Amino acid sequence: MRLRNIKGATEIVASNKYIITNPKEYKGNYNKLFSNNNPIHIEIGTGKGNFIISKALQNPNINFIGIEKYASVLIRCLDKLENLNIDNLKLINFDATDINSIFDKEIDTIYLNFSDPWPKSRHEKRRLTSPNFLEKYSQIFKTNERIIMKTDNRKLFEYSIQVFNQKKYNIEKISLDLDNDDIDNIKTEYEEKFISLGMPIYMIEIIK
Amino acid sequence: MRLRNIKGATEIVASNKYIITNPKEYKGNYNKLFSNNNPIHIEIGTGKGNFIISKALQNPNINFIGIEKYASVLIRCLDKLENLNIDNLKLINFDATDINSIFDKEIDTIYLNFSDPWPKSRHEKRRLTSPNFLEKYSQIFKTNERIIMKTDNRKLFEYSIQVFNQKKYNIEKISLDLDNDDIDNIKTEYEEKFISLGMPIYMIEIIK
Repeated sequence: MRLRNIKGATEIVASNKYIITNPKEYKGNYNKLFSNNNPIHIEIGTGKGNFIISKALQNPNINFIGIEKYASVLIRCLDKLENLNIDNLKLINFDATDINSIFDKEIDTIYLNFSDPWPKSRHEKRRLTSPNFLEKYSQIFKTNERIIMKTDNRKLFEYSIQVFNQKKYNIEKISLDLDNDDIDNIKTEYEEKFISLGMPIYMIEIIK
Repeated sequence: MRLRNIKGATEIVASNKYIITNPKEYKGNYNKLFSNNNPIHIEIGTGKGNFIISKALQNPNINFIGIEKYASVLIRCLDKLENLNIDNLKLINFDATDINSIFDKEIDTIYLNFSDPWPKSRHEKRRLTSPNFLEKYSQIFKTNERIIMKTDNRKLFEYSIQVFNQKKYNIEKISLDLDNDDIDNIKTEYEEKFISLGMPIYMIEIIK
């Protein structure tokens, strides 16, 4: 996504009620933040928030946490939330590279939507489906590991299938053209754009 | 493929020098037929033969056997071979359902090109990538199991990825748009047609 620098975005984001400003303090205890023991689903790379806001509204008995590195993008998500009161949704302005410092054995599902493909081989470790990241995720899952990924990037998807296979995940669902499948799907802003261009959306759900 | 009944096709096919008319007699001993110990690659569903003829010409140190159920299709393949002398190519007019009756621990690679998708659930067992067929193949492989599959059928490909994953095969290569990838590829007659329609060709290579 092309990023514009929005003046004061970090400060605006920090003062919003949906934002967890001190995530490290909740590590292992997000159930206390939500005041219940409902399952916790997180999205890494929340962007403008369409996906996670819709998910939270549709699933009141699941807690959702959106993680977004860029305050200048997260601010768009907060705009959408301005007149909404959603108890089961929180957001964190954070780089997922360090995800093990904010979560511990408490996540049920991770959503990876249209992640940066990092096409160069030397950047493989930065891909959110690299063995490097899968290793990090395995420490934040409560029991079963469940990852649901969507992307328009063919090379990232081919790469991810190979990594998931190699790391012995079970493929629960797979679609090579999600928009033409009869699968329940909430579209991200990015996704709408790619579908309108006639490009296939790839989806995979894996568990271990 | 739409099949026309060609009068006398079975007899024409049976009398051709490329055809093995008594495959059960060679079970476990195809190296004697070829008079060498080169690796043996088979294609199940050879159709009009473009793929396997090109493969055989390009790889003189590999023996190729094409298996095709329909004599009326195989006859087209024989037309192409009329003026060619290819020592490392043989053809069998046979239904692969019974593949264990003609091969035993002697195959190195199986090619599955544009196999019938058998879309109905109740026909799952007929799909050439079903657990049912994988079990049969495992008995005809010499050491490692290597299967290279191409298809234009999205649902068959999604299904096959899930089966391969579930059955613990390693994905060596995968492409969700083979014609736009830099992978060495001999096209089948079917494939040329689908590419000209702008449809993606899916490819996967697995080993165990």
